[in-house]
Amino acid sequence: MRPSSSPSDGSLFGGVLHRGRVADAVSDAAWVRALLDVEVALAGATAPPAAAAAIADACSHILIDVGALGRAAAVHGNPVHPLVAIIREIVPSQAREWVHVGATTQDVLDTAAMVIARRAVVAVLDDLTAAAEVTAQWAEAYRSAPMMGRTLLQQAVPIPFGLKAAQWLSGLDAARDRLRALTFAAQLGGAAGTLAGLAADPVEQFAARLGLSAPGLPWHTERSRIADLAGALGIAAGAAGKVARDVTLLAQTEIGEVTEAAPGGSTAMPHKRNPIAAVSTLAAAAQAPGLVATLMGSLIAEHERAAGAWHAEWRPLRELLTVAGSAAAWLRECLSGLTVHTDVMRAAVDRAGWPLENHASAARPFGHADAFIDAALRHHRSPHSGPPRAGSPNAADHG
Amino acid sequence: MRPSSSPSDGSLFGGVLHRGRVADAVSDAAWVRALLDVEVALAGATAPPAAAAAIADACSHILIDVGALGRAAAVHGNPVHPLVAIIREIVPSQAREWVHVGATTQDVLDTAAMVIARRAVVAVLDDLTAAAEVTAQWAEAYRSAPMMGRTLLQQAVPIPFGLKAAQWLSGLDAARDRLRALTFAAQLGGAAGTLAGLAADPVEQFAARLGLSAPGLPWHTERSRIADLAGALGIAAGAAGKVARDVTLLAQTEIGEVTEAAPGGSTAMPHKRNPIAAVSTLAAAAQAPGLVATLMGSLIAEHERAAGAWHAEWRPLRELLTVAGSAAAWLRECLSGLTVHTDVMRAAVDRAGWPLENHASAARPFGHADAFIDAALRHHRSPHSGPPRAGSPNAADHG
Amino acid sequence: MRPSSSPSDGSLFGGVLHRGRVADAVSDAAWVRALLDVEVALAGATAPPAAAAAIADACSHILIDVGALGRAAAVHGNPVHPLVAIIREIVPSQAREWVHVGATTQDVLDTAAMVIARRAVVAVLDDLTAAAEVTAQWAEAYRSAPMMGRTLLQQAVPIPFGLKAAQWLSGLDAARDRLRALTFAAQLGGAAGTLAGLAADPVEQFAARLGLSAPGLPWHTERSRIADLAGALGIAAGAAGKVARDVTLLAQTEIGEVTEAAPGGSTAMPHKRNPIAAVSTLAAAAQAPGLVATLMGSLIAEHERAAGAWHAEWRPLRELLTVAGSAAAWLRECLSGLTVHTDVMRAAVDRAGWPLENHASAARPFGHADAFIDAALRHHRSPHSGPPRAGSPNAADHG
Amino acid sequence: MRPSSSPSDGSLFGGVLHRGRVADAVSDAAWVRALLDVEVALAGATAPPAAAAAIADACSHILIDVGALGRAAAVHGNPVHPLVAIIREIVPSQAREWVHVGATTQDVLDTAAMVIARRAVVAVLDDLTAAAEVTAQWAEAYRSAPMMGRTLLQQAVPIPFGLKAAQWLSGLDAARDRLRALTFAAQLGGAAGTLAGLAADPVEQFAARLGLSAPGLPWHTERSRIADLAGALGIAAGAAGKVARDVTLLAQTEIGEVTEAAPGGSTAMPHKRNPIAAVSTLAAAAQAPGLVATLMGSLIAEHERAAGAWHAEWRPLRELLTVAGSAAAWLRECLSGLTVHTDVMRAAVDRAGWPLENHASAARPFGHADAFIDAALRHHRSPHSGPPRAGSPNAADHG
Repeated sequence: MRPSSSPSDGSLFGGVLHRGRVADAVSDAAWVRALLDVEVALAGATAPPAAAAAIADACSHILIDVGALGRAAAVHGNPVHPLVAIIREIVPSQAREWVHVGATTQDVLDTAAMVIARRAVVAVLDDLTAAAEVTAQWAEAYRSAPMMGRTLLQQAVPIPFGLKAAQWLSGLDAARDRLRALTFAAQLGGAAGTLAGLAADPVEQFAARLGLSAPGLPWHTERSRIADLAGALGIAAGAAGKVARDVTLLAQTEIGEVTEAAPGGSTAMPHKRNPIAAVSTLAAAAQAPGLVATLMGSLIAEHERAAGAWHAEWRPLRELLTVAGSAAAWLRECLSGLTVHTDVMRAAVDRAGWPLENHASAARPFGHADAFIDAALRHHRSPHSGPPRAGSPNAADHG
Repeated sequence: MRPSSSPSDGSLFGGVLHRGRVADAVSDAAWVRALLDVEVALAGATAPPAAAAAIADACSHILIDVGALGRAAAVHGNPVHPLVAIIREIVPSQAREWVHVGATTQDVLDTAAMVIARRAVVAVLDDLTAAAEVTAQWAEAYRSAPMMGRTLLQQAVPIPFGLKAAQWLSGLDAARDRLRALTFAAQLGGAAGTLAGLAADPVEQFAARLGLSAPGLPWHTERSRIADLAGALGIAAGAAGKVARDVTLLAQTEIGEVTEAAPGGSTAMPHKRNPIAAVSTLAAAAQAPGLVATLMGSLIAEHERAAGAWHAEWRPLRELLTVAGSAAAWLRECLSGLTVHTDVMRAAVDRAGWPLENHASAARPFGHADAFIDAALRHHRSPHSGPPRAGSPNAADHG
Repeated sequence: MRPSSSPSDGSLFGGVLHRGRVADAVSDAAWVRALLDVEVALAGATAPPAAAAAIADACSHILIDVGALGRAAAVHGNPVHPLVAIIREIVPSQAREWVHVGATTQDVLDTAAMVIARRAVVAVLDDLTAAAEVTAQWAEAYRSAPMMGRTLLQQAVPIPFGLKAAQWLSGLDAARDRLRALTFAAQLGGAAGTLAGLAADPVEQFAARLGLSAPGLPWHTERSRIADLAGALGIAAGAAGKVARDVTLLAQTEIGEVTEAAPGGSTAMPHKRNPIAAVSTLAAAAQAPGLVATLMGSLIAEHERAAGAWHAEWRPLRELLTVAGSAAAWLRECLSGLTVHTDVMRAAVDRAGWPLENHASAARPFGHADAFIDAALRHHRSPHSGPPRAGSPNAADHG
Repeated sequence: MRPSSSPSDGSLFGGVLHRGRVADAVSDAAWVRALLDVEVALAGATAPPAAAAAIADACSHILIDVGALGRAAAVHGNPVHPLVAIIREIVPSQAREWVHVGATTQDVLDTAAMVIARRAVVAVLDDLTAAAEVTAQWAEAYRSAPMMGRTLLQQAVPIPFGLKAAQWLSGLDAARDRLRALTFAAQLGGAAGTLAGLAADPVEQFAARLGLSAPGLPWHTERSRIADLAGALGIAAGAAGKVARDVTLLAQTEIGEVTEAAPGGSTAMPHKRNPIAAVSTLAAAAQAPGLVATLMGSLIAEHERAAGAWHAEWRPLRELLTVAGSAAAWLRECLSGLTVHTDVMRAAVDRAGWPLENHASAARPFGHADAFIDAALRHHRSPHSGPPRAGSPNAADHG
């Protein structure tokens, strides 16, 4: 057996667990490109034009062996050190002194992480938006389609399916609002956060070149940006998971109120119709809380740069972006192809003996459901954001 | 031995682990009061004035045996059910039908949780603000006081202590910004979220009476509010923990650059000077990430009301408010009494052989530290909030 | 409103969330008693008989104000310091020097925690055992009662309900095996783990007096005992939660294959039959993983005694014991009163068109289910433990 | 820029975060090989010899495109389905019906996971053992070498460095004991856990062929094995992290009691000596608790096979094995090259004014440290295990 992949690459489970565009956005290739982009932006903001151009040119042609870079990273504790050495080697000698000037490795890695994260969040947003659109259409279309509301997994009272869809919409939009409110800041502080190696502070220009915002001061050990990003991603994964949980429950053989478009079969049971997309959404969402906790733990970072807490962010952040992205992508597929069986829903209401005309009041069998649906739709259609800001995932750059 | 407390009450460890005003804000007594306040507000928003007044009057005189209420809660799965029964029993008969009208137990419990949470967040904010003020003063006062910057727990290059204080300030202010951006919404949806039991939708008035905001639609299983609150509290605890970590490191016997005002002794070693406040801050902060994870996990809530995920929020939310509050209160004490030994700091720089006049450039021994300090102070002094909004922790109500 | 409880006491939610005997086993009163027992045992193992007797006598009559003790705890960072002061005050003067001799506060608190934990684990085991017995009876009784096996929440192929019960049994017994394999060790190391204050090492005798095992060396910052206990409790909570999840799913209105004995009603929907015990089991179980994570995090403890990580264990350990106990107690109630509707199960198989005589092979419609059921029962009935060891939850002491 | 890696492969950070042999043991290539091994063992245990030989032959020559397999996995929700299709395609037609007979995809994936996990645990054990050996030598060699014991990051009383080393040893050995106590069981239950597709139960033979133990019954949704493995790995990571935390603290510039052999430099500060191995150990260890929590969460698995909880285990288990392995490998390197400066340790004791001859008692300056060191060494040298059992990480197979 000769498998054609390199070690640990995640392709095997990636189809199920790393759905959507985020997997590419956080790949090693994307990371190397982002690290190089950051070095180019740094040179652009600090070096004489000729040197900056030479560095940009070198970085656009450089051939990086990611495996070798990773191995070299172990010597110094991160991959920026050997990458800088490679860049210095290939640029013309007169540009050499302008490579990585004034920066520390964490500046470059953190800034690249923000470039990566912002692109990944744009991808998550795209998929959540598409999923939200489907629920918005249902909220409108099924305002009067009765189904049994269920509490504690017991049938309660009838609701319109449109209200359930509006609830899903409300959760997805809340998650989108959180993601859209994020800003992504560049990092530039030098050795111990004083930026002592540079006469002028180039951070505004540096950040602008990368589509990031400029922080007031370096944030080497002020990690609330990462924790806040983690929280927003956790909410996104959870919002998708909530909808998927409902779909798996509604798709139960005994309930049958929805069906996925392309339900998976089974090696052992060809007759089965597994709601693979909803199940895969749940699988992604279940991984988020533990990753959020790990990233929250890294808030406690020693002195000017941490002894481990920072390094402990790298994998969990990548994983959390990926599971949020996978949950959003799977949910989009799930909802896009979902068949809603309003007849089955209606039959359950009838079977439960709820003559809708007698429910609550004849005039208002569903209470204020209409108003709630309208509220969710109004929020959904309102302009959530002004003109795109630098550093926010609304900005034009789509990676 | 006859201990004078009731079971599980947390007093024993509360002195260390439940510091500050939040412990009271989340106590059983505060919860019962909040639950009663919610029933009163509901009556106020739905009942005829005479009935509403009778309910308010009854609730202001009611004597609740919390232990008995808790035991009764087990029968129905939450304490609102028996509380409503008690209220119904004591109000005049003509007001009875207006008690808890249209609401489900989760409406009352969730709304009370938001009343509780908002008051607790105000307390957390007060302590974080006081702690931030101390760091702001240091940032200004110690702009030129050299100390060794430390990265990966190794001495790196000199920085002014004012920059370290500005970094602390920046983290505390970021945490405050997150907390202040929270809104606290009332919950009112009835049995399955349609509010079918009420002809008019009283949610605006209901919310306003409690100082909460009115949500567009019920959020029985759209829990992003709770997850977002959890994230903000996790960031608050972490921001406090970061400062406390630095304090414990700077207070090491071998470093001795800061000393706590009232360091604890030891039963075994009377000569010791333990930085109890910083250690207790860390103890609180370390508990936050796991609690955040649990609350994030409850985002995945079944159908119209969840079968367990909701109940699983009650204790972790209380604990998370408490540890955030305890971290903030301990940090405030820690910093308020902290002695900063600038002479020791300076001596370490000298010993390390950093003649400051030669560092980086004679004109700029600390690089851009001054500008960074100014940025942190500018952000700190800027008006973070407009006029207080209902439902936000800026509002006048201080519980 | 005058609630009759003290702050933060957890009674309000305790009925739902702190079910069973563990709540008492971890109460403040139980803690104070355990701390006093530890001081008595220490005196017994180190002091001359007359002094030891005087200390034991004093501790049996002492009146402790837990609230005051908790407040005093804040000064030194833990409640042992003021408790020792109280004991010293009330013992006859000639016994005074023998109070707390050689020990540090962490010795007393950790040892008391192990006394508490062992009693709590015995309570968890009792409830899990009772729950397991019910499933064992079902495994035997329902070997041939067909129901639909369900995978990914879809009907798959028929299984006997006895096999599902055997699976539940297998999980509960695995959790019991883990809990029974725990040992609970005394802690005695003095100031920095050398036990320098004592000429002879009394740890064997000290441990024996408390029903604990004697560790080879102090474990002030070797916390694998706590982490291992946490893991076992997490597994116990999860095993209960798995059964409860199945019960809530089987109890769905549309499936109706089981019914809880005393299903809770609803303030809004008197017709509803909520599976309160199963839901409360799930609510407890959902809180375990985050608490396990926090306790695992405390493995990283500085030097000879940690600066925060140890203090960060106190509340989570108490909470984790409580949620495991609550899950076990609720599950016991749930299963003890559960009605299994084999007719409804059978009807679902028929409706699905599985003529059992044609399934797989006529001779073996349920495959090897019989053998699997036997395996689970055999394991269940095997002697899991030899004679009770000191320090293990099998030992005679039941607190 | 043309990076030479495939997406998401983790090579970039792998040098720092995926140290040691575990990364290879859990790679996609290792997984595919394990999946094929499982199918071969299943055929060996169920098929006629000729068919089994044909399947084994085909699987040994098969060329798998892992990326394509991963993509195909998404259709059915796991990679076993398409892998079986490939095997069926290439085996001689008369063997075709014997491929994957009686099994469900989860049987194959879970069994492969146990094969993978067992090999990875062997690797973790090797590195922990090597690290423990170093500490054992120090415990013996430095029985009388004084250093300051430190509690709450304050100097407390002198201890011998041998005692600290014995404490490290004790933690590492406790972690090794936990890992060695694990068993790794095969999974074979078919569609819904009845193994209905097979006349005879081949699980003993199936398991034996893979060096695994045979479970009494299938464990598709009885996941305590995974949770227990997770706990043991969490303890292993934490035990390594505790030592690394101490090393980073002792290596502080101001303390200087230990030095790493190959401390990393810094792009910004060539004079710095970063304890990269200890820091990388901490970075790995910090990721464990969140992953343990996620795996504990998967205990709550629906019915006969879970709707998401199972899939949610795949990545976290791989990550947890990797971080435990990385922590162990880095710690081994850290300790193997660590220089212990006993003169610096001694000087700190002198500076603190502890004339050792006057400490505690002249005859016993270090109390019972000698006895504690002996206890740790005795435990370390005792035979921890009998003859290797199938399914345990003691067995001969080293992957």
